[in-house]
Amino acid sequence: MDKKLTVGIIGVGRIGKVHTLSIQHHLPQVTVKGVTDKFIEQAKEWAAVSGIETVYDTYQEMLQDPEIDAVLICSSTDTHAEIAIAAAKAGKHIFCEKPVDLSVAKVRAVIEAAESAGVSLQIGFNRRFDHNFRKVKELIDAGTIGDLHILKITSRDPAPPPIEYIDVSGGMFMDMTIHDFDMARFLTGSEVEEIYVAAASIVDPAIGAAGDVDTAVITMRFKNGAICVIDNSRKAAYGYDQRVEAFGSKGKAEISNDLPSTATWSTEDGVYSEKPLYFFLERYMDSFAEEMKQFADALINGTATPVTGIDGLIPIRMGLAAKKSVMEGRPVKLSEIEG
Amino acid sequence: MDKKLTVGIIGVGRIGKVHTLSIQHHLPQVTVKGVTDKFIEQAKEWAAVSGIETVYDTYQEMLQDPEIDAVLICSSTDTHAEIAIAAAKAGKHIFCEKPVDLSVAKVRAVIEAAESAGVSLQIGFNRRFDHNFRKVKELIDAGTIGDLHILKITSRDPAPPPIEYIDVSGGMFMDMTIHDFDMARFLTGSEVEEIYVAAASIVDPAIGAAGDVDTAVITMRFKNGAICVIDNSRKAAYGYDQRVEAFGSKGKAEISNDLPSTATWSTEDGVYSEKPLYFFLERYMDSFAEEMKQFADALINGTATPVTGIDGLIPIRMGLAAKKSVMEGRPVKLSEIEG
Amino acid sequence: MDKKLTVGIIGVGRIGKVHTLSIQHHLPQVTVKGVTDKFIEQAKEWAAVSGIETVYDTYQEMLQDPEIDAVLICSSTDTHAEIAIAAAKAGKHIFCEKPVDLSVAKVRAVIEAAESAGVSLQIGFNRRFDHNFRKVKELIDAGTIGDLHILKITSRDPAPPPIEYIDVSGGMFMDMTIHDFDMARFLTGSEVEEIYVAAASIVDPAIGAAGDVDTAVITMRFKNGAICVIDNSRKAAYGYDQRVEAFGSKGKAEISNDLPSTATWSTEDGVYSEKPLYFFLERYMDSFAEEMKQFADALINGTATPVTGIDGLIPIRMGLAAKKSVMEGRPVKLSEIEG
Amino acid sequence: MDKKLTVGIIGVGRIGKVHTLSIQHHLPQVTVKGVTDKFIEQAKEWAAVSGIETVYDTYQEMLQDPEIDAVLICSSTDTHAEIAIAAAKAGKHIFCEKPVDLSVAKVRAVIEAAESAGVSLQIGFNRRFDHNFRKVKELIDAGTIGDLHILKITSRDPAPPPIEYIDVSGGMFMDMTIHDFDMARFLTGSEVEEIYVAAASIVDPAIGAAGDVDTAVITMRFKNGAICVIDNSRKAAYGYDQRVEAFGSKGKAEISNDLPSTATWSTEDGVYSEKPLYFFLERYMDSFAEEMKQFADALINGTATPVTGIDGLIPIRMGLAAKKSVMEGRPVKLSEIEG
Repeated sequence: MDKKLTVGIIGVGRIGKVHTLSIQHHLPQVTVKGVTDKFIEQAKEWAAVSGIETVYDTYQEMLQDPEIDAVLICSSTDTHAEIAIAAAKAGKHIFCEKPVDLSVAKVRAVIEAAESAGVSLQIGFNRRFDHNFRKVKELIDAGTIGDLHILKITSRDPAPPPIEYIDVSGGMFMDMTIHDFDMARFLTGSEVEEIYVAAASIVDPAIGAAGDVDTAVITMRFKNGAICVIDNSRKAAYGYDQRVEAFGSKGKAEISNDLPSTATWSTEDGVYSEKPLYFFLERYMDSFAEEMKQFADALINGTATPVTGIDGLIPIRMGLAAKKSVMEGRPVKLSEIEG
Repeated sequence: MDKKLTVGIIGVGRIGKVHTLSIQHHLPQVTVKGVTDKFIEQAKEWAAVSGIETVYDTYQEMLQDPEIDAVLICSSTDTHAEIAIAAAKAGKHIFCEKPVDLSVAKVRAVIEAAESAGVSLQIGFNRRFDHNFRKVKELIDAGTIGDLHILKITSRDPAPPPIEYIDVSGGMFMDMTIHDFDMARFLTGSEVEEIYVAAASIVDPAIGAAGDVDTAVITMRFKNGAICVIDNSRKAAYGYDQRVEAFGSKGKAEISNDLPSTATWSTEDGVYSEKPLYFFLERYMDSFAEEMKQFADALINGTATPVTGIDGLIPIRMGLAAKKSVMEGRPVKLSEIEG
Repeated sequence: MDKKLTVGIIGVGRIGKVHTLSIQHHLPQVTVKGVTDKFIEQAKEWAAVSGIETVYDTYQEMLQDPEIDAVLICSSTDTHAEIAIAAAKAGKHIFCEKPVDLSVAKVRAVIEAAESAGVSLQIGFNRRFDHNFRKVKELIDAGTIGDLHILKITSRDPAPPPIEYIDVSGGMFMDMTIHDFDMARFLTGSEVEEIYVAAASIVDPAIGAAGDVDTAVITMRFKNGAICVIDNSRKAAYGYDQRVEAFGSKGKAEISNDLPSTATWSTEDGVYSEKPLYFFLERYMDSFAEEMKQFADALINGTATPVTGIDGLIPIRMGLAAKKSVMEGRPVKLSEIEG
Repeated sequence: MDKKLTVGIIGVGRIGKVHTLSIQHHLPQVTVKGVTDKFIEQAKEWAAVSGIETVYDTYQEMLQDPEIDAVLICSSTDTHAEIAIAAAKAGKHIFCEKPVDLSVAKVRAVIEAAESAGVSLQIGFNRRFDHNFRKVKELIDAGTIGDLHILKITSRDPAPPPIEYIDVSGGMFMDMTIHDFDMARFLTGSEVEEIYVAAASIVDPAIGAAGDVDTAVITMRFKNGAICVIDNSRKAAYGYDQRVEAFGSKGKAEISNDLPSTATWSTEDGVYSEKPLYFFLERYMDSFAEEMKQFADALINGTATPVTGIDGLIPIRMGLAAKKSVMEGRPVKLSEIEG
């Protein structure tokens, strides 16, 4: 491949727009040639606003364009696998948003399609590229905290999604914890053996009625001996709460939230500081740019993408194990989940 | 009772000395009349150093002294129950260090002895009186964070005890986590239903060989719906790590460690701050004084002691449940533990 | 003016490049049509890299282009006044980097030229647009801290500039403190009456030999009664240190430095955190984009620019007063400085 | 002297009581044999409450008691010099609260009396013994921040004293800043050459009417090249604000306030933390005990006291220079102040 890369974006909802702008603002070596969307008017509107040349009526049409080197799959989760497999067959490199699919078999099919076709596949676990999480990873890798003994991940959303979203998302473990499962693998550098979940629907009983949970404490044993605990909530009144603490034989590393400013103010009534950045778009904007940059660099240089198909598959198995643990009230081994 | 209180101290190891000094320095209404110790020379030495009038050859002798209103049982754990029951029969009020005993039946016997005799019984869970933990309790009780959803307790020692100590202490859950079990009950204001533990002996294999663990993540479901997670380690390289985070429907409250000073310093090499106060004597000195003050106040005013016999009993059952969870690799209900 | 704005950039050193990218990445309503530079090869190279259409041989040529609505003057300080006056005469709106000029008379001439020509003039005091400083301004304006009594500004560079730069920059008060003088005016919302400086050249004697200082504590009385103190150093070993504390009748507001990450790590040796972001490009990148946005918005909407010519003039008089205070060892009134 | 020390306390107002308790609680080698007070009933009451054996009708009577090794002068400032001189003549060692006197000549007389009599003299600058300030001193002495370039001291009271107090105290520089002057000498390890003050009475005009100021920024040049700036206010709405920042050639060291707890809490409305400890008794309690311990140790071991008569004298000269600077609106050299 030339030192230039031409991409098409499939799906121009919130995240498709973020990727468009990341590329246009930060990656002069990448061109967004065209977009498409199930709601074609949205694709046309976005193309106009952002100065994109081409609107394809369907993703199939985009895949036939020989100028397109790679596609960014930003459509709804249920369409990812079909599109990714088609893209692989068309010889396009693939960036696919998470989760790849809720079915392990389908994710496996995507991985195999990419391998058969010899195209690159990167999954959108953007938090690996965030400045805070990356620093913890560096400290672990540098041996600063020694062998990892306990990893604590706090991940809480500012507000629950609509009940309808839960129906299609696969539930909290699939749409929210999946990022934390990936982070646990990323930071431990190891694979989970067993998962135990204590969960509840105490934020909103309607979530429980819809068959999901909104609050969970998830304990995981990793092969390297580390014990990881994730705590999740669908609703943190003070905002988006994203922290980790890695504790090891020689010390600990921890990160706090990013804030709108470093200001604190003190009055007769007390001492105040800022709430965390509101939600994932504000909080992780830079990481979206960085993941896209590393995707482009990998394609241009012919090197491996930094988050592989397997990295997309395993968190789904972990999510299924977590669900099973809740259902059966016992620790579940990952080996109990096919895939 | 008069507005004065006269006490005797049984056992003048580290904690017996701390209580002596707390009383002498901060509680003018309380007199330490006498001490005793299995190693009587230690009792004599301490009496001389601290200006205590009487050394009793045995605790029985102390119990016969009609001037003694209350005893502080600071001897080794295996002697607590016997002494406490004798004290109750002698009509002395009792302050007993934790754990009361490793056997639920014996603790029950102590409680019943105190009840029969109509004497007060307070257990030495000093952390309830600490400025940081108390502030979290106040915030929870004031409704600042709404209903409690997730409680996270971090409790890590600076270094493991000698292996011999583990043999007599009942293991990590009994000598260390027991404080965290009490804190969980104190902060949730509720009782545990089920406990699941993921544990390991990765700090020192000799601990594992001695049949104990040194690292644990303990998940507990409480009757009021709160999920609590404790993480323990016998060895935090940077020192004694004592924190909690309470997360609820309206917000969160959290505490960090107390430090020797608030200093930070910045050089070409980085930004530095102080490590936590070294260990429990340094860290909790003020709380020992406060628990003794509230014990004395309760006796003098004829009100209930702030940490009761039941408060001493339940954490022991929780410890036994935790052990069982480790042995059987499954969540254990508290109701499975007799008592 | 149409809802579009076309600009030319004069001088494509470090800051000219920053402004180019800010516009291209964040301001779709603004087009950088062309650039020029005293070193014309640099202009050509930058135009190629950044996809700018036109390279003008001279700034005069740019000023003759009827498509150019506004110019950004990013050349060396000694050329600002001449270019700005020519731009005003050519009817171009002006964004001029700070300081406008070291001579009060010349700055006055620029202001008058802009007023005569009826063009807008904005001065590049970017820190007014920074998230941290802006939050302090908001807190002051909201009355949160009451009447301002004491304002403390810390402003320290990571390393001194080359001695040759000091010769042309006008010295520390003109090239560095000038930002702090502007911040003092911005936050107090008032004008200085008197300035006293205690200064030294203790970072590097060569700076003293060149007739400048490298360390200063600058006390200023403002008309509204506030007392402001700035502390400057040319060399903070730990990096770029940029903080303010505003203290008033009802409380205080303060900001700390922005950091590469929120990570802290603790080992046997101590507790560590990150040093500040390295220097002004890293630290203030977002503020450069925001000042450009507000410049464009003002032109497009026909409203006043947020940092006026007078805002460019007064800090220069403050710098001259500061110098005079150092020379004469006494407080100097601003009214002693012509202008 | 024997390894025991017997002291008498002259004046049992707030600070006399603090010293009594510090000794009784922490210094077994020191006995408070007796007290006296201009208001003799107060002395009797305090002796009863605290178990002190003797009440002397006058300080002269105390000085005649051969069992008294040393006196603590805790009476009102205007009586310090007379009592101290008498104590010296009686061969008693002296601990004298600050300021020794408002007159340089009288302080000088006290120093000379102590020297003639060969008795030890320690002045009550307790902050030198505080954990935070001491850590900064250690970092400076260890060379961690290199040569000291800028020292910033923030010292703000929670509320102004009654106007009548100002009349007798000598004003803000004498009753409040005097601690900061001492701290500046302690931390720089050098002597001041010149002082410039920008001050105002903006907290309360009645303070100005009484001839004093309530807000000040004080710049000082020290002989070793350091520039020090103190900012004072009589009223910080959020409480007692006591911080320093030491900036040097290799870095900086800074301290923040001590807080009632480390708790922070976050809700929909924001993030909160504790206000500083309320006032000097709460904030500096431990330092009072430590200064008394070092006083006793010096006497018992026959070594030099850690804060000498000269250390009591120079801050008074600094206060007079500060006043003169305010009156004359110019920097004042310390050499202009006799003494």
